[in-house]
Amino acid sequence: MEKREELYAGKAKSVYRTDDPERFVLVFRDDTSAFDGEKKEQLNRKGMVNNKFNAFIMEKLEAAGVPTHFEGLLSDTESLVKKLDMIPVECVVRNISAGSLCRRLGVEEGQELNPPTYELFLKNDALHDPMVNESLAESFGWATTEELARMKALTYQVNGVLKQLFDDAGMLLVDYKLEFGRNGADIVLGDEFSPDGCRIWDKATRKKMDKDRFRQGLGDVIETYEEVGRRLGISFD
Amino acid sequence: MEKREELYAGKAKSVYRTDDPERFVLVFRDDTSAFDGEKKEQLNRKGMVNNKFNAFIMEKLEAAGVPTHFEGLLSDTESLVKKLDMIPVECVVRNISAGSLCRRLGVEEGQELNPPTYELFLKNDALHDPMVNESLAESFGWATTEELARMKALTYQVNGVLKQLFDDAGMLLVDYKLEFGRNGADIVLGDEFSPDGCRIWDKATRKKMDKDRFRQGLGDVIETYEEVGRRLGISFD
Ligand SMILES: Nc1ncnc2c1ncn2[C@@H]1O[C@H](COP(=O)(O)OP(=O)(O)O)[C@@H](O)[C@H]1O
Ligand SMILES: Nc1ncnc2c1ncn2[C@@H]1O[C@H](COP(=O)(O)OP(=O)(O)O)[C@@H](O)[C@H]1O
Ligand SMILES: [Mg+2]
Ligand SMILES: [Mg+2]
Repeated sequence: MEKREELYAGKAKSVYRTDDPERFVLVFRDDTSAFDGEKKEQLNRKGMVNNKFNAFIMEKLEAAGVPTHFEGLLSDTESLVKKLDMIPVECVVRNISAGSLCRRLGVEEGQELNPPTYELFLKNDALHDPMVNESLAESFGWATTEELARMKALTYQVNGVLKQLFDDAGMLLVDYKLEFGRNGADIVLGDEFSPDGCRIWDKATRKKMDKDRFRQGLGDVIETYEEVGRRLGISFD
Repeated sequence: MEKREELYAGKAKSVYRTDDPERFVLVFRDDTSAFDGEKKEQLNRKGMVNNKFNAFIMEKLEAAGVPTHFEGLLSDTESLVKKLDMIPVECVVRNISAGSLCRRLGVEEGQELNPPTYELFLKNDALHDPMVNESLAESFGWATTEELARMKALTYQVNGVLKQLFDDAGMLLVDYKLEFGRNGADIVLGDEFSPDGCRIWDKATRKKMDKDRFRQGLGDVIETYEEVGRRLGISFD
């Protein structure tokens, strides 16, 4: 497999074509951004940590029956993935209230949500990723009813697997976002699952162990990502 | 039936207890507000116009099989309604893009939405009526899955009736919000349907004939509400 030209450079990763028209290389960079790209920094080792973190999680999910784009690690910061036709909607599950939900609904952070909530956001930086719903997604043609139902079912299936995984390692999976894409007739989990796109708290102390450390200037961002990984059994060197 | 003390004064209507514990009196006032109460005015005759407008629409809906709280006109500005346990969620259907949808999603006003979209907003002025969804409504206990399904079905049933009614009278029903409440085990349409809570455009000229005339300072607000009513066959004197 040969890496060819860069097709797209996102806020944290770059997508490269390969000699296989059905496969891309994802490169995890050290770039870190928050608040729609307003706060930006390079965090040493982040690309490597998130690449390996994501590989571990994607393999767990694949083993649990969730179809993912992940094919294998290529290097410390590169993964081979299936080329997907991405659906421009982020699927968010929340097990515990935090972040934008608290601001929007005026609720306290740290409340258990039962059942866990499910929200859709349009992936659009210029519009600040507005909240949408399945009806809007259908009418604007972002996805079909069937695709949306599949995304929802898979997102909850992921929750069953990952909530337990983090719990077993002494952590709470507070919330996370997933992105899906089309691969032929299938809906496949794409993008990444890493502490950049979820909230993880220590179960005993509720210490924040995710990108909120960066957003809120709490320090030790990557050290804490690595701690999360080590607790799950990921080795980073 | 005897009107007793005022229980609640909203932005545009007041709710009175009666000697019948199962019935309220809704008083339609001339108060008009927009932008979460930031813009406020008294518009002469509005209470009367909206009261009669609402009575006409509620009777049409009831005749079409939609359960409503409306029991009858009591005076120019008062209606007798069934007491409901209101669900604090507004159900919005859009047949054509306009208003907040255009700002949120960066789409042009006046685009036909196919199928018509369905959104939920939490009724909460302090939070500026944030967008929510069925999952949030269930998890926060605002309504059950079954109630939400019924509200959605009724809201679309209303659309079938009213879209045609306005179309036959040379107008486009662009969008509208409904509020529902519980009456025993039933979900019943409450509150009001008037040009205060929907968008109506002239079919030929697309002239705005609803509360956007007030929001946007276009003038002739109540004269235009009355024109809408007259086209539908409502008599205001
Ligand atoms: N398997 C895939 N095929 C095609 N595109 C993908 C795949 N997985 C992720 N992507 C897209 O690649 C980009 C990853 O880079 P990222 O830095 O996260 O970008 P962004 O700033 O757009 O979120 C995202 O736009 C994501 O939707
Ligand atoms: N049948 C009913 N039973 C009880 N409350 C009702 C009924 N119909 C409407 N309401 C409530 O009465 C109030 C009507 O006054 P309004 O001026 O529209 O208030 P608001 O500013 O809260 O929207 C609303 O809060 C509405 O939810
Ligand atoms: Mg991204
Ligand atoms: Mg109201």
